[in-house]
Amino acid sequence: MSKTGGERAIISRIRGLIPGGSGDLVKGIGDDCAILKAGPGRLNLVTLDTLVQGVHFDPAWHPAHELGRKSASVNISDIAAMGASPRFALLSLALPRAVSKEWVESFMAGFLEVLTEFGAVLIGGDTVASGHEIVLSITMFGEVAETEVLTRDTAKVDDLVLVGGFLGEAAAGLDLCRMGQGGAAQWQPLVKAHLDPTPQVELGRVLARSGLVHAMLDLSDGLATDLAHVCAESKVGAEVVAEEVPLSDLLRKAASFCGRSPLEWALAGGEDYQLLFTVAPDNEQRLRTLVAEQLGGVLYCVGRIVEGAGVTMISADGSRREISYQGFEHFAG
Amino acid sequence: MSKTGGERAIISRIRGLIPGGSGDLVKGIGDDCAILKAGPGRLNLVTLDTLVQGVHFDPAWHPAHELGRKSASVNISDIAAMGASPRFALLSLALPRAVSKEWVESFMAGFLEVLTEFGAVLIGGDTVASGHEIVLSITMFGEVAETEVLTRDTAKVDDLVLVGGFLGEAAAGLDLCRMGQGGAAQWQPLVKAHLDPTPQVELGRVLARSGLVHAMLDLSDGLATDLAHVCAESKVGAEVVAEEVPLSDLLRKAASFCGRSPLEWALAGGEDYQLLFTVAPDNEQRLRTLVAEQLGGVLYCVGRIVEGAGVTMISADGSRREISYQGFEHFAG
Repeated sequence: MSKTGGERAIISRIRGLIPGGSGDLVKGIGDDCAILKAGPGRLNLVTLDTLVQGVHFDPAWHPAHELGRKSASVNISDIAAMGASPRFALLSLALPRAVSKEWVESFMAGFLEVLTEFGAVLIGGDTVASGHEIVLSITMFGEVAETEVLTRDTAKVDDLVLVGGFLGEAAAGLDLCRMGQGGAAQWQPLVKAHLDPTPQVELGRVLARSGLVHAMLDLSDGLATDLAHVCAESKVGAEVVAEEVPLSDLLRKAASFCGRSPLEWALAGGEDYQLLFTVAPDNEQRLRTLVAEQLGGVLYCVGRIVEGAGVTMISADGSRREISYQGFEHFAG
Repeated sequence: MSKTGGERAIISRIRGLIPGGSGDLVKGIGDDCAILKAGPGRLNLVTLDTLVQGVHFDPAWHPAHELGRKSASVNISDIAAMGASPRFALLSLALPRAVSKEWVESFMAGFLEVLTEFGAVLIGGDTVASGHEIVLSITMFGEVAETEVLTRDTAKVDDLVLVGGFLGEAAAGLDLCRMGQGGAAQWQPLVKAHLDPTPQVELGRVLARSGLVHAMLDLSDGLATDLAHVCAESKVGAEVVAEEVPLSDLLRKAASFCGRSPLEWALAGGEDYQLLFTVAPDNEQRLRTLVAEQLGGVLYCVGRIVEGAGVTMISADGSRREISYQGFEHFAG
């Protein structure tokens, strides 16, 4: 879910209170993960995220098993976003008394299933009582070579902006669940994108090893917000070509069914957990070939990095519109 | 706050799902912190704790600045409990919309103040919306030499059980706050113990360096529960001598004022964040001398480790009572 302006203001104030990197600390607040020096040539990454019932998930349509999977996946995605491999997790569960033993066991099974899929291990955590809401906090550790780590502050003017898959799927799935369509067979790929997204660890590793990528992050808050983060941290601007944003046929069909714009799901919806990265134009084809050969994957170019600041969307009629940080609360009807 | 039986059952089920230490992982769930291998001869410790409004704190009497301090301190205490030094913190704030900018700034100032006092640095985190309750999740990292780390599973039969300060102070402070006595000048040391406890990092380091201590933890859930953890993990029993539990004169006075038992505050109240540790009888005097010389501190012997299981309290009249895991919910009127 995209941050409100108030949340961004708080985060910005907190960042101002924090010293820069020094000693073992390579990079603190401001990226997907904090970066710490590990052994010679190695870095440890660490990220902490919190999911709150009623804000980030609704147990009415989010089965415990899928929620457990998603809680692990969205944190693993922060590790993937820097080209790293996940290693260790800590989990804190704050549970109202009404939550059943069966719910907890199903949640844990899903959580551990995803850790195992990605070679990570649960090493600690806590279970505490809460009053009204389930609150899940997850700390995830990753590891990467110093020469491979990818951050969001290194985009260069003229870079192309690529993404690793269709966008807007999870936002469509959320709207379908809200409309009571979560069980409809035809929408299952979109519903799964919301309930049980897949972190792009393998793609992240291929991109990191390639040495061709300048900046990278994962799309958790929507293209408009996340690309604005890349721009702010890299001190550049970006242009997005509306027609190039990759939208699946199923997404277009769901948009028609829901009376929504598929493009706005992609720009503002968030939670896609696809990777967004920038590459010099000369290296685009090499990177496409590498990803096709190693993963059978397709990359989509959605725009380019320009001088200046902020994210501008160029529509098919040539009109331009500033879309920086326009999250769910802005576009949603 | 002490766990309920239901919470302990959930934690126990989760522990059963988790593999033991292997590779970089020296020790996972079961101690104050997880232990990871760092550089040669060095260990990294990591702990994740969550504080929930209405369960762990009440903003009605807990000023934001003191809550910020306490949120850092209770996590630093987990690091101190293993003889380590705190290094890095991550903070996740889940905030209802009604929380003011001033509250957040005051909280952060207190949080960062304590980090600075103990030489730790904030390196990351997140701010998210929540529905009804403020929820604070903190990940804290520490570092210690492999030869110095102290865990809770290494108590030996015949060891003496020592604590590093008066017990029950924080529980008394909580009750006084609940009774509207939080502002009364005479109770300030007790109220401070609840609102702004001091993690025993220096004492932990002296004990770790001494090489004389067998097992250690910090008293977060009350003597009855925490000593039961030592017993369960070390596969031993313990006897506590009621008359030897260190109670301050002010605590006795407050107990009389509140109509409560000072001993039960100490056994069952929790949140003292004093260190509890075990030492062979032959080494007791050396350890006392070391702590007196290096810190000017006094140690209190509250009992001893015996064969068997569980914690037994011996009263002045010689009567014996099993008190394992008897937390707040058991004793409280």
